[in-house]
Amino acid sequence: MSEDLVIYMESRIKMFNEELIHFIQTLEIPPHLKESMLYSIKAGGKRVRPLLVMASYEAYRKDVKKTIHTSAALEMIHTYSLIHDDLPAMDDDDYRRGKLTNHKVFDEATAILAGDSLLTYAFEIIANDPLLTDKEKVYTIQKLSVASGPQGMIAGQTLDIEAEEKEITLDELNQIHKNKTGALIQFAVHIGAYFAGASEEQLSYLDKYSYYIGLLFQVQDDILDITGDEERLGKPVGSDEINAKNTYPSLLGLEGAKKYRDYYAKEAKNALDKANARQSFLYDLIKYVAHRDH
Amino acid sequence: MSEDLVIYMESRIKMFNEELIHFIQTLEIPPHLKESMLYSIKAGGKRVRPLLVMASYEAYRKDVKKTIHTSAALEMIHTYSLIHDDLPAMDDDDYRRGKLTNHKVFDEATAILAGDSLLTYAFEIIANDPLLTDKEKVYTIQKLSVASGPQGMIAGQTLDIEAEEKEITLDELNQIHKNKTGALIQFAVHIGAYFAGASEEQLSYLDKYSYYIGLLFQVQDDILDITGDEERLGKPVGSDEINAKNTYPSLLGLEGAKKYRDYYAKEAKNALDKANARQSFLYDLIKYVAHRDH
Repeated sequence: MSEDLVIYMESRIKMFNEELIHFIQTLEIPPHLKESMLYSIKAGGKRVRPLLVMASYEAYRKDVKKTIHTSAALEMIHTYSLIHDDLPAMDDDDYRRGKLTNHKVFDEATAILAGDSLLTYAFEIIANDPLLTDKEKVYTIQKLSVASGPQGMIAGQTLDIEAEEKEITLDELNQIHKNKTGALIQFAVHIGAYFAGASEEQLSYLDKYSYYIGLLFQVQDDILDITGDEERLGKPVGSDEINAKNTYPSLLGLEGAKKYRDYYAKEAKNALDKANARQSFLYDLIKYVAHRDH
Repeated sequence: MSEDLVIYMESRIKMFNEELIHFIQTLEIPPHLKESMLYSIKAGGKRVRPLLVMASYEAYRKDVKKTIHTSAALEMIHTYSLIHDDLPAMDDDDYRRGKLTNHKVFDEATAILAGDSLLTYAFEIIANDPLLTDKEKVYTIQKLSVASGPQGMIAGQTLDIEAEEKEITLDELNQIHKNKTGALIQFAVHIGAYFAGASEEQLSYLDKYSYYIGLLFQVQDDILDITGDEERLGKPVGSDEINAKNTYPSLLGLEGAKKYRDYYAKEAKNALDKANARQSFLYDLIKYVAHRDH
């Protein structure tokens, strides 16, 4: 990763994190509930989705202020989905990013309610954004609710649970990830460019870019679960195999998965060219995602 | 309850139920998830909140078509909150309204995801309402997200859990119910009148009405848990005492609770008069809620 890119990402993440935490700090709500929401919001995370919103905006226009409320809403929805996914009834994970999961620090009831709170508050934040017109707010809520709801992210989670310990095809695996992680990524790239006034055609190429970068992200995640370093990753490796998860390497072999990764990277670049967005962090991101080690 | 009122309620509930179920039937989502959402949506319920939206609209204008999307969204949010509240980590209830709870019919993971889906889809439905302007949509989402989020309904649920097996004051009990059930009731009455073009002053008196009708509803619920008939109620009586719940009768005695009920009913009537909404189902509802036996 180039030094410029590191500086770009760090500066935006720092600014964004302050805004994100401020949104929750200023809520007048039961203290225990706020603590639980803040715990998971602060528990790290790469802020990939907010970075995508900002980068997509900056591919066409300067100054990302207009994206902050929506980026925060998106990160809250991502965070709520992790809290609920980690619950004993779901993936039953005690650790995430090297830290105890929400329900291990608080309790299950609080974790469920903190997740529900983050999801609900996300829509409030968009509806209250002083920099968006009513038309832009409605468009954003339409897109975000579809991406994060039963037609998007929750569909992916449902299909993922149903596929456990079953053999599935590559198409079915793509379908799971397209929904489970892809829907929010596509929303992020789409809405940033929309706020910046991108054309319908540009938006449609960016949707393609998102499709490939989402799969790219996932295939590299699966590869890292085999070849990664536990300390860098902040989680144990080899857990996919132990849990008999359907992954790209389990379907294609490790070398096959790497070939797919390179193919997805190439297609993502092509789509970005056609969207006139090559001069942007979105382009650097392809390389970063394909070669990241955590 | 007068025969006219029964006919009024039944006709609106029938029409509303068809629309509500249609919203979910038409979703293209994993079948198992849809089944779980439909199960709880169809599991009965008095549709009090949608009836309030419609009645409040009809206090000022004819033809409730404009309220349908919002009423459906509101009922979905109410239903999601019941699904999550019934989970083993929360109230751990096996039955609701005489039927098995969602996680008993499906499983916990599905119940969590069905709840998340109903909450998210509620905002989509409002954002896609063809009968509202963008301004009305944004206003509705602002109000609904606050009423149902960590500043409203979820705050009430949190405070309720924290109050378990502790002695609390009447003010604290009112605070719990004002949030836990009152926030959505207030939203219902407020938004119906808003759609019908009620004035700021009228809206503010209707907010008062909602405050009292919400408490009235709760105090009667508590009274029925002592004096009610199990078959009519569809749930066992006496469970509040067994669970050491803070209720109006436990704080005030049964006779004291009945006096509060009558006081709340009187205040609700006064507020309705000042909102020029006496000639409406909202008025009949006071008597119905105060004297219902299930």
